[in-house]
Amino acid sequence: MATQAPQPPQGMRDHLPGDYRKRLALADRIRGIYAKYGYAPIGTPAMEKVEILRGNDPENEKLMFEVMKRGEKLEEARQKGEPLSDFALRFDLTIPLARFYATHRAKLPPVFRCQHIGPVWRADRPQKGRFREFMQCDVDAVGSASPALEAEVILATAEVFRTLLGDGFAVHLNDRRLLAKTLNDLAVPPEKHADALIAVDKLDKIGEDGILKELAERGVAADLLARLKAAAEPATLKEIRALVEAAPGAPRLVFDPFLVRGQGYYTGPIFEVRMAEFPGAMAGGGRYDGLIGRFLDKPVPAVGFSIGFERLLLILEEKGVAFEGSGEPQVFIPLAEAALQAQTFALAAALRAKGLRVLLQSDPGKLPAQLKLADEVLHIPFAAILEADGRVTVKDLKARASGQPGTFDAAAADLLQRLKPA
Amino acid sequence: MATQAPQPPQGMRDHLPGDYRKRLALADRIRGIYAKYGYAPIGTPAMEKVEILRGNDPENEKLMFEVMKRGEKLEEARQKGEPLSDFALRFDLTIPLARFYATHRAKLPPVFRCQHIGPVWRADRPQKGRFREFMQCDVDAVGSASPALEAEVILATAEVFRTLLGDGFAVHLNDRRLLAKTLNDLAVPPEKHADALIAVDKLDKIGEDGILKELAERGVAADLLARLKAAAEPATLKEIRALVEAAPGAPRLVFDPFLVRGQGYYTGPIFEVRMAEFPGAMAGGGRYDGLIGRFLDKPVPAVGFSIGFERLLLILEEKGVAFEGSGEPQVFIPLAEAALQAQTFALAAALRAKGLRVLLQSDPGKLPAQLKLADEVLHIPFAAILEADGRVTVKDLKARASGQPGTFDAAAADLLQRLKPA
Repeated sequence: MATQAPQPPQGMRDHLPGDYRKRLALADRIRGIYAKYGYAPIGTPAMEKVEILRGNDPENEKLMFEVMKRGEKLEEARQKGEPLSDFALRFDLTIPLARFYATHRAKLPPVFRCQHIGPVWRADRPQKGRFREFMQCDVDAVGSASPALEAEVILATAEVFRTLLGDGFAVHLNDRRLLAKTLNDLAVPPEKHADALIAVDKLDKIGEDGILKELAERGVAADLLARLKAAAEPATLKEIRALVEAAPGAPRLVFDPFLVRGQGYYTGPIFEVRMAEFPGAMAGGGRYDGLIGRFLDKPVPAVGFSIGFERLLLILEEKGVAFEGSGEPQVFIPLAEAALQAQTFALAAALRAKGLRVLLQSDPGKLPAQLKLADEVLHIPFAAILEADGRVTVKDLKARASGQPGTFDAAAADLLQRLKPA
Repeated sequence: MATQAPQPPQGMRDHLPGDYRKRLALADRIRGIYAKYGYAPIGTPAMEKVEILRGNDPENEKLMFEVMKRGEKLEEARQKGEPLSDFALRFDLTIPLARFYATHRAKLPPVFRCQHIGPVWRADRPQKGRFREFMQCDVDAVGSASPALEAEVILATAEVFRTLLGDGFAVHLNDRRLLAKTLNDLAVPPEKHADALIAVDKLDKIGEDGILKELAERGVAADLLARLKAAAEPATLKEIRALVEAAPGAPRLVFDPFLVRGQGYYTGPIFEVRMAEFPGAMAGGGRYDGLIGRFLDKPVPAVGFSIGFERLLLILEEKGVAFEGSGEPQVFIPLAEAALQAQTFALAAALRAKGLRVLLQSDPGKLPAQLKLADEVLHIPFAAILEADGRVTVKDLKARASGQPGTFDAAAADLLQRLKPA
């Protein structure tokens, strides 16, 4: 095969240990916070049947990585000129959740609260900061139309941001029904609603003048802008606000009549987490009372909020938010000569038995070079050096300070003491 | 859409909360144990380029879910009669790890130890206990030919089984070079080696008589069986054994000249975890010094051990091994009437601020029915009931015993006390 190093598929990423540990730690933190709100973790397959993901939205088709039929079925499809794919990779977690609910509803409680964290795949053209495989973190509450559930998913999501980034964010709120009513009041024909909303959605990027220009181009009355600016906060949003603000430390809620959210499935309140320092949304969600009904013979109310995991991770890195150590090796055991190898294995076993994370040198060599590598490349804080007499010296690799030689147990006790969180 | 409940793709599974919590907990336990051996977590994409996964093994092709090209590239491929797929879902974690190492080797330490845990996909015909999407948990050490690394991956993997299931397992060891040499000594032509090994591999299923019959059918000398039975443990395996057994509590190692392992890429020692009560392997691995070289201009030695996550989970369930609670709601707050809703939100916030996991009733209704559901369906141990005077009564839902009404803080303190691990 080629001697040039092979790469992962374009727009998809490998994660090296430093990066991957952060990802694991962040997902864990988010899971723990969602759990405080009673949202139970679920899993769905990476793929769904094509027709489930396609729905009735032609935009979905463009996002999908489709999976080819196999064997005889592929041959048959080729010969009959039928579609060659049967499955596709999920491009969000909401449609799989809706399908999951429809499949299992008999086993689920009347109000089903779940958290759904996992990768999704989008066949977008790759660009900076935009990936074709990325993580989403959703909370969804299915089975009740109560605005208490909007309040709950907002509180849970806000706690994630507050815990990780402090209070420098706001939750923007709007209601799809307000947007629809405003357009209807202005006699904008239904087929132009989507176009008008695309213009409204750009307030951040193009400003009011830009919106006016776009509305004119799309043949929508310029009044739309003024009407939205003058709109009063709808009653439903006030109900949500009252519940979110019932306790101290509530997130800042901003009624934002220009908030649109792209997805076609939202039917009521919609919301986003925004930070002044960063453009765009950090999280987005809303009520989607019609989506699950597509898979069943009756409508099922539902509301969800989804955190952009990759975006959040990037911001945490930019802000230098440290994650606690999660699994890095704590002790390095060098190997001066092959004859000592079985003894280093015994030493490693003694340290591991005390819960220590130990990296054991596999090939004999010069000690100074091994210790340098352990310190500078592997970033291991301590070494446990087996002496010729079978005793062990603990060495602080950063401070370059060694203790007195002692037994395996004494070394373990010493290391545990040194590694104890202050 | 159809009124019949939709299903996930055949052979792929949804995971309901009880099931998914166990999966998360098991993956976490395995990660923690691997970390004790210095194996750092990495991630690779779900897909790789088709040619990377295909390698030179026609069997691989059958396992792959291939991903269709998109847009213009798909059209072009159709017109030119070229392959319609460009990517495929990974069917194991070893080939992606080899590709990962080749891509990033400049940033990796001379001996790279990693753990790689994630789903893989196989286009097998679905059958009982066999899935088309399932988890694998691999440890790999890349960059050294030292048998210390075989010993290390064996110890790490054995610690997973010992921690979860006790000592009722053995690690079977063999060496591909012993198998090859035995076949060569018997003048079995190379093109018949694979066939002969397939027969040898069936000892568990068909017994010695069965193997003799199969060898005869395949035209291989019956001597093979006798030679393997008489084979002495090779020196390399003895070296590995000495290191594994250097400390007390070592796993039981069984030299098993009939162990074959299916994959074509193994080049030296091979190993499996077996349990007398369950047929087949719980984990499998070995040295694969040739695989990474396929992607580079030089060979790179490597060894790995992979745990069958789904199998292990099934056995843990059969044996009734309990996992610690991981995220279930601890406190239920009912809602008698809508007018109290904001107050229940305030109560929930007060309890969550103390770290409690709280499920809040969203719709008002009769208390007895709500508490019954919380106990019997949601399995929540306690309720915090808001009284008309604003105080809170804590109720043990299993014992049906209530405390005295008190403040939010008193309720939180009471609940934390009751939930404290014994």
